[in-house]
Amino acid sequence: MFKPIFLATSLVLLNAQAMANNVILIIGDGMDDQQISIARNYLQGAQGQLVLDKMPVRGSVKVITVDEDNPSKKVYVADSANSASSIATGVNTSRGRISSTAKTNQHPVTIMELAKAKGLATGVVSTASVTDATPAAFISHSKHRGCEGPEQMEPGKLFYGMYKLDCDSDGRANGGKGSIAEQIVMGSTDVVLGGGLKHFDQESDYDSEHLLTKARVNGFSVLQDAQDLENIEGDRLLGLFSPSTMPVIWQGTKGAKAEKINGDLKAFSCEPNLGFNGMPTLQTMTEKALNTLARNDDGFILMVESASIDKQSHYRNPCGHIGELKQLDETVQFVLDFAKSHPDTLVLVTADHGHAAQIVPAGSLFGGQSTSLGRVALVDTPEGSQMAINYATSEGQAEEHTGVNVPIFGNDVAEGLVPSNLEQTDIFSIMKGYLDL
Amino acid sequence: MFKPIFLATSLVLLNAQAMANNVILIIGDGMDDQQISIARNYLQGAQGQLVLDKMPVRGSVKVITVDEDNPSKKVYVADSANSASSIATGVNTSRGRISSTAKTNQHPVTIMELAKAKGLATGVVSTASVTDATPAAFISHSKHRGCEGPEQMEPGKLFYGMYKLDCDSDGRANGGKGSIAEQIVMGSTDVVLGGGLKHFDQESDYDSEHLLTKARVNGFSVLQDAQDLENIEGDRLLGLFSPSTMPVIWQGTKGAKAEKINGDLKAFSCEPNLGFNGMPTLQTMTEKALNTLARNDDGFILMVESASIDKQSHYRNPCGHIGELKQLDETVQFVLDFAKSHPDTLVLVTADHGHAAQIVPAGSLFGGQSTSLGRVALVDTPEGSQMAINYATSEGQAEEHTGVNVPIFGNDVAEGLVPSNLEQTDIFSIMKGYLDL
Repeated sequence: MFKPIFLATSLVLLNAQAMANNVILIIGDGMDDQQISIARNYLQGAQGQLVLDKMPVRGSVKVITVDEDNPSKKVYVADSANSASSIATGVNTSRGRISSTAKTNQHPVTIMELAKAKGLATGVVSTASVTDATPAAFISHSKHRGCEGPEQMEPGKLFYGMYKLDCDSDGRANGGKGSIAEQIVMGSTDVVLGGGLKHFDQESDYDSEHLLTKARVNGFSVLQDAQDLENIEGDRLLGLFSPSTMPVIWQGTKGAKAEKINGDLKAFSCEPNLGFNGMPTLQTMTEKALNTLARNDDGFILMVESASIDKQSHYRNPCGHIGELKQLDETVQFVLDFAKSHPDTLVLVTADHGHAAQIVPAGSLFGGQSTSLGRVALVDTPEGSQMAINYATSEGQAEEHTGVNVPIFGNDVAEGLVPSNLEQTDIFSIMKGYLDL
Repeated sequence: MFKPIFLATSLVLLNAQAMANNVILIIGDGMDDQQISIARNYLQGAQGQLVLDKMPVRGSVKVITVDEDNPSKKVYVADSANSASSIATGVNTSRGRISSTAKTNQHPVTIMELAKAKGLATGVVSTASVTDATPAAFISHSKHRGCEGPEQMEPGKLFYGMYKLDCDSDGRANGGKGSIAEQIVMGSTDVVLGGGLKHFDQESDYDSEHLLTKARVNGFSVLQDAQDLENIEGDRLLGLFSPSTMPVIWQGTKGAKAEKINGDLKAFSCEPNLGFNGMPTLQTMTEKALNTLARNDDGFILMVESASIDKQSHYRNPCGHIGELKQLDETVQFVLDFAKSHPDTLVLVTADHGHAAQIVPAGSLFGGQSTSLGRVALVDTPEGSQMAINYATSEGQAEEHTGVNVPIFGNDVAEGLVPSNLEQTDIFSIMKGYLDL
């Protein structure tokens, strides 16, 4: 350890000369204040504190989405693609777009591209596929989040069976950048860890070379399980630990989720999800990424996404999103400790958009049972009470996002950099300014 | 106006000697981040700023409720009674209670009682009945929020037809403090302005004296309309401008509210509510209260409540709560200007609990129409877009509250006093500390 023997002002100057600045940005997908309150109640008790709660800087972030056909028109609810693009590029766009502009389909430069051009190391970690919207916006450009791998680049492919993708016009045969997976293996990002193997375990739609071969040729060590993550070193790492989204750590007792009220609701608590066995945790992936990136003398930027807060709220699975937020909170503690021993590290934690779940009274405020027509989960909390969670934005298979402001948290380095109220594009500017890009 | 001719440091010292400290606490009832985002989208546009957004200090407040029978057990959703009691007394309690303790029915001292004992002037302003839960918690003690006036003190009275009140055991005949209205007219609060005339236009259940007569005997000037508010001066003011809750400023076009989705939703915008005509605004009431209280050389504390954010969200009336938040935001601007000319004035703005309304996609994220089974409003915004608001916590007559953390905002005086994360009881401590009570 460096031992300070100078006055504080001298020390600051010395550090500025000796060390480069780093940024660690953690995104809890869908992690609005309801999600944080739900997780706190379960994990720490209503009066307890998450690691997030102890962070010294806190602000509120406006999430701005524009209409694809008329970009001057506002849309009041975002998806992860456009909101991550706002943070990654400083430019607001329309839903579904990956760091590309609404209507005009331009590719604004990402914070990762700016960092790489200045010699910084760059990385992303996610519990989703690394080709999923949030990581994709930091390390690729695409007309649509659905263009994840070679398979989707063929004309006429559907996005989750809902509507036709238009990926082929972004294909390399048409002068485009190709699928998100191909952009990752051909690109400059140093560390890419998460799920999504299925999008890489394919041949390129352009030159028929296997994407994992391309990755190795381009200098990546390819990791496929927790042992690889522990044992394999390299300046460039591509870790793909599950076919698509990584399994979550928790589930409701015997798989219980929220359901429609039909008589008395049956309370449940959370238990380990056996499907997670053998997976690396978000913290372990983040630790590996930091150890790798911190070797670069010119500093680094790392984006870490806890993806399944969103995905499990879509599925009305409270233990899924509580467990995922637990992973995020533990990772935040690890990152704050890292920043203590690397004092020029700006740590920001935020969400991309709001989500459906709401804490509602376990019995109605007006007497009698809850009468929500949505799905309700009654969760037994470790502090001995019951928390009712309402998911009531959709009758369909998945809940909707909401248009609420989301929180941002910062470590002490963020003091004076993060105002009490900002837009997601300001996060881009704050990171760019701090890294002097 | 006092003209500063000294150095800044001397000025601060001079002010500290010459002026007493003041606190203005503004509570938006049910004003969670969804409500703020909804109001911003309509009033200023998605990228605009409310006055609230410009306040330099922002934190997040945990709302703590306990079980009536087992106060060590947490309840995850508050009502306005227990949450206002936490702020007013620094003691958490159970739903329905007005500055009285769960199970043990003790009366913890309120911030207003502490202030009065030190010679400060005290006041409350509300757009609800001044006997309603939020103002009541600051200026009375009661077993239940329903014990508003003499009428409710008779045994066997029902609370909104839902369950039996137990007000008579708090009656003066039984050695109690009497109804909330009677406590106000017999009490020491200097300025009480809002709705709720019907609870005062009655004879006391104890001594048969009319409550308005009691008020006048106790030194109050009684004001009953906007002209009175403008013309009548006095050191003690009781203003009762409507029978119960004051009408709100806005309604949906021709009274439109959220409704169940049945075919295409019909969009509407907001128009003046004619029922508001002749009513004083929240800002006018606040101005009168400040002019009156600021005459006291020893300082003052004023609580201002914008009540109908909550009430109109219960009724699924977006224009009702947007207009009410407009009233609050204009009042905040007025109060911030007051604090500029009275620099030892701490301004805090917060909410008591979360509410049902959520901004959802105007069409589903997954294609097609929204499929919420709750009530949905499609609101045409002045910036030329459409905002969908979902109310889906209850099939019954009124929506429920939610258990989300609520925001707190502060002026520059609040810097260093309000941490990024706190509990409602901490607001009591911050005010107590600032006023040196």
